[in-house]
Amino acid sequence: VTTATFTATGMTCQHCVSSVKAEVSKINAVTSVEVELSSGQVTVNSSTPLSDKDVLDAIAEAGYAAQVSSR
Amino acid sequence: VTTATFTATGMTCQHCVSSVKAEVSKINAVTSVEVELSSGQVTVNSSTPLSDKDVLDAIAEAGYAAQVSSR
Repeated sequence: VTTATFTATGMTCQHCVSSVKAEVSKINAVTSVEVELSSGQVTVNSSTPLSDKDVLDAIAEAGYAAQVSSR
Repeated sequence: VTTATFTATGMTCQHCVSSVKAEVSKINAVTSVEVELSSGQVTVNSSTPLSDKDVLDAIAEAGYAAQVSSR
């Protein structure tokens, strides 16, 4: 299991959280996604390592800017 | 056609707007619903007059407090 974290900006409510979770969950190999509204933190677990770009693109698809969290 | 207006509080984004529109649209006789995020104004058109309570309940179902706008 691989865990990667990202920070999304602009989420204002639980609907936003849900839309980010839904988009990131579509990525192949993703097994779970947690999104924290207050901090914008998006934690992604996957069975194989993901490309950061795929995750950032998925978050962008949901409508939010994001960056890789410091690791 | 009857038009009634309500003011909802707590909507923060277009997802919220969509959820209010979806709930209010379910009410029988409703023909269209407009929701303005910035003001919270919910404008409901219907083929027959609606009960205010039905509309307020629908907005509450979406997760927002609301009141009848001054008429």
